[in-house]
Order: sequence, then C-alpha cells, then structure tokens
Amino acid sequence: MIAIHDPDDPRIAPYRAVRERDVTGRGERFVAEGEVVLRLLIEGGRGAPRRHVAESLLIAENRLDALGELLAKLPPEVPVYAAGQSVMDAVVGFHIHRGVLAIARRAAPETAAALLARLPERALVVVLVGVANHDNVGGIFRNSAAFGADVVLLDETSCDPLYRKAIRVSVGASLILPFARGGSGGDLLDALDAEGFSTVALSPAGTRDIAEIAPSPRTALLLGAEGPGLPTALMARTTTARVPMAAGFDSLNVATTSGIALYALSRRMQS
Amino acid sequence: MIAIHDPDDPRIAPYRAVRERDVTGRGERFVAEGEVVLRLLIEGGRGAPRRHVAESLLIAENRLDALGELLAKLPPEVPVYAAGQSVMDAVVGFHIHRGVLAIARRAAPETAAALLARLPERALVVVLVGVANHDNVGGIFRNSAAFGADVVLLDETSCDPLYRKAIRVSVGASLILPFARGGSGGDLLDALDAEGFSTVALSPAGTRDIAEIAPSPRTALLLGAEGPGLPTALMARTTTARVPMAAGFDSLNVATTSGIALYALSRRMQS
Repeated sequence: MIAIHDPDDPRIAPYRAVRERDVTGRGERFVAEGEVVLRLLIEGGRGAPRRHVAESLLIAENRLDALGELLAKLPPEVPVYAAGQSVMDAVVGFHIHRGVLAIARRAAPETAAALLARLPERALVVVLVGVANHDNVGGIFRNSAAFGADVVLLDETSCDPLYRKAIRVSVGASLILPFARGGSGGDLLDALDAEGFSTVALSPAGTRDIAEIAPSPRTALLLGAEGPGLPTALMARTTTARVPMAAGFDSLNVATTSGIALYALSRRMQS
Repeated sequence: MIAIHDPDDPRIAPYRAVRERDVTGRGERFVAEGEVVLRLLIEGGRGAPRRHVAESLLIAENRLDALGELLAKLPPEVPVYAAGQSVMDAVVGFHIHRGVLAIARRAAPETAAALLARLPERALVVVLVGVANHDNVGGIFRNSAAFGADVVLLDETSCDPLYRKAIRVSVGASLILPFARGGSGGDLLDALDAEGFSTVALSPAGTRDIAEIAPSPRTALLLGAEGPGLPTALMARTTTARVPMAAGFDSLNVATTSGIALYALSRRMQS
C-alpha cells in the first residue's frame, strides 16, 4: 500500500486525465473502475480464471477498509496506491465517486477462429457487426454473461469492449467473457460456418418470430447497429428473426433486443 | 419562422442553459430534443392524439428543409425559432448535434386511479417503484411502448419520465404513453387491486420463472431499482417472478429485464 499525497506523483501517471485518454486509447492497457468490476478483474468469474492482468490500483483512502479482503487477493507485485478523494479527483480529472480504479493489461488477443475452435459441442456465440456505441456493447456483454453465452465476436467496426464505459455498463462482463474483435462481418460468418454454427440474425425485418427459432447445438446470434441494421449480404447468409412488437412503436434498443433473444434462445438450448 | 441571430435574444430565453435547468426542473414545462421525439410530440403516436403541447421550437438552420413537412403540422400560434448552429449551441450551453429542440407544456397530470379506470378489460400496466435513473426509466418506457403496455405508473421516488434524457432514451415513448407519478408503491398496488389487476413483481429472488406466468386479462408488471430491488412488503402482495439466468453472473439491467418480461407476458396475453 503506497500513500499518494501529490496529484503529480509520477507513480500514478497512468491515471492522469482518464477521459482524454479514453479517446486516444491505451494500446495494450485499459482502465477498470468500481468494486464489482475490480472483483471480476482480480478473481475472474463464471468459473473461469482471470483473463487480464491488473498492473496497479488507485483507491480512495475511505474505501480501503471495505476492500481489504479483495486487495489481499492481489499478487504481491501489484502496487496499490491510496489517495484522498481530492487528490484522486485531481489526477483523474473528474469526481471518482466509486473511489476504485485499476490499470490492467489485456489478455493476448485471439482470432475468432481460435476462440470458436475451443468451444464445446453445445455453444452459444454472440456476434456484433457495426455496434459502435459503448453503452450498447457493454449492455450486450452483460446480457451475454447473464444468459450463458460462451464468447462474443465483434467485427472491426464495433467498439472495444474494454473501453472504460463499456466495461462499466457490462458490470465487468467484458472482463470475463472471451471475445475476439477484428475482420468484417463476412469474415466472422466464415469462421462460424467452418465450425458448424447456425447463425440467427436479429432484425425488425426478420422473417421468423424469435420465439419460433429452434436453436442448433451450436448457435450464433448476429446483431447490428440500431438504425442502419445489418448489411443485406450478411442477412442473406443467415436465418433472420424478429422480436414481435406492438403496432405503431416498432423500436427496441439493440442491447435490450440481445437480452430478449438470448433469453428466448438460451432456454431452448438447455431443454 | 423567426430567425434568431443573438444568443441573448429574450424570445429564446427558455432554451438557455438547458443542462443546469434539467437539475432544477421546469415545473409544468419540459424540453424535448431530436427529430423522432419532436414528431411524437407534435403528432402523437400509437393511434393516440398528442398528449403534451409544444410551446415553441428552436431549430438549427441547416435542419429546416428536412423538417419542413413536420413543422407544417404545428398549430400556427407555435413560434419556430431558427438559428445558426453556433448561436444554438451558445444558448443551450452545449453542442446540439441533432439541431432540434422544443419547449412543451405537460398534459394535466392524472392520478393512477383515474388512468386505470379508463383502461379496457384486457390491459397491461407497468409499475415502477424507486427507479430513479433516467436512462432506466427511458428504456422502460421504450420497451413498454414496443410491447403495447397501456400505461406506466411511477411511485413518488421514481424519476420524471419527461426529464430530457429520459425522453431521449425512450425515443419519445414517454411523450405518448399515459403515465401517473406519485404516492408510494403501496398506494399504487391499492389502485391496481381496486381495478382487478393481478400484479407480477420481477425480482432475482422471484419464486416463479417468468415464462411460466399465465397473465390475467388485467396484468401489472412491477419493477424496482437495480441493487436495492423491491421492498419485501410490496413483494408479499404480488406474484413474484424471476428471469432465469446463467450461474455465476446473475445480473440484468432493470430496463432489459422489463423488455424480457414484457416480451414474455405480452405474447401470452395476446394468445
């Protein structure tokens, strides 16, 4: 435990101007915030070991007691910096009311093909194409974890699930769910085809009611951005399904749509 | 159409410092933003006439052409102020990239009892107790409209659905769905009981699977805040139900939960 009294202390430089660095990105590193997220970073979750490596923590002094048990699980080489709230806020650049931050190094990235090759015979995969909104990506990871999806695949135009806000909205799910990001939607469908997955694309124009889809043992759920939706060429390669809605207000958020579709598919895959 | 060149023009004073006034509230008035929301404000939706009254509009000059057809539907006494983007941003206090704002007067508030008394024999009501997050309230209104709920009831500790951000997240659903806000959760259950509603409370600790609930012709869906959840005393007065989730990550956002529960209940009420 290292007490920090000066916002300019070089040891906590990685925590400086968090929001500005969110925009430019941090390469191999990312920022995690909040106790629930920190717990998943340190301990892993869903029966799997941790995926990413905490490099340091910055904790508000008044949170140290409550976090003692969790901090004791850190490898001894990970420094825990403790600062008063005002020093912490000055470093970070805004009020950190949760009082818990970590800098972590990403797990080595894997390709979609490598992730899929490791899955069991029964598997549920979530695939995002063009989902660039951090709240939506975070919400979709939260739902994917809640309904037991095995991995998430994102095309190169979808946003990074380890962006700070995406992690927060996911309640840490993006730290524990294996994912691969890169390539086009077509590339991702190729990888799924090669591993024997049946893909269901969600769209308001889908031809079948999601409740009537009988999922295969290996099923992928494909989602696009609200507004533009999925490219026609991708939809043509899949079974398309819709969530039936009331007349006159045909509008669901893509994260909510993922929750409904995962609810409907996952219970049928178990039965 | 009134051209505005000066951010200090008194005619657009209601648009000044929008965010600061969000905090203090605007009494009988509220701010709506964006084209989709404006359309529901002016035209109503879901086959119902408009509920609230637009008092004035402030539109970025470069949006006027695209909005011409919609603006033509305004009553002639409603002023449409047009300003360049920089004047608009200066008045409002931040960059309005949608370029569309309105000040509106609320429909006369109604009590929960009055709203319920007008409902048909088959009706679906959403009830919120302690849901104080604007994103969640907005998301729940969006889902309520998408799945054909008739009204939304909010206890006095839930937030105002006509708060600017709640309207935006609802994609305007909070402008067209009738709602009542006030009283305690117990008061709302009393009003529902008096009108013969069966109430299903959603909770991770619910005794029944939401998929196994056979809804009554008049069904109410009760939701509480994430974290604290619903008070035990309210749950004891209802059927409690849960959304089954995977082991090890038992966490859904309340707006997503509302979407799943409304999906499950509404399709059974129709069949």
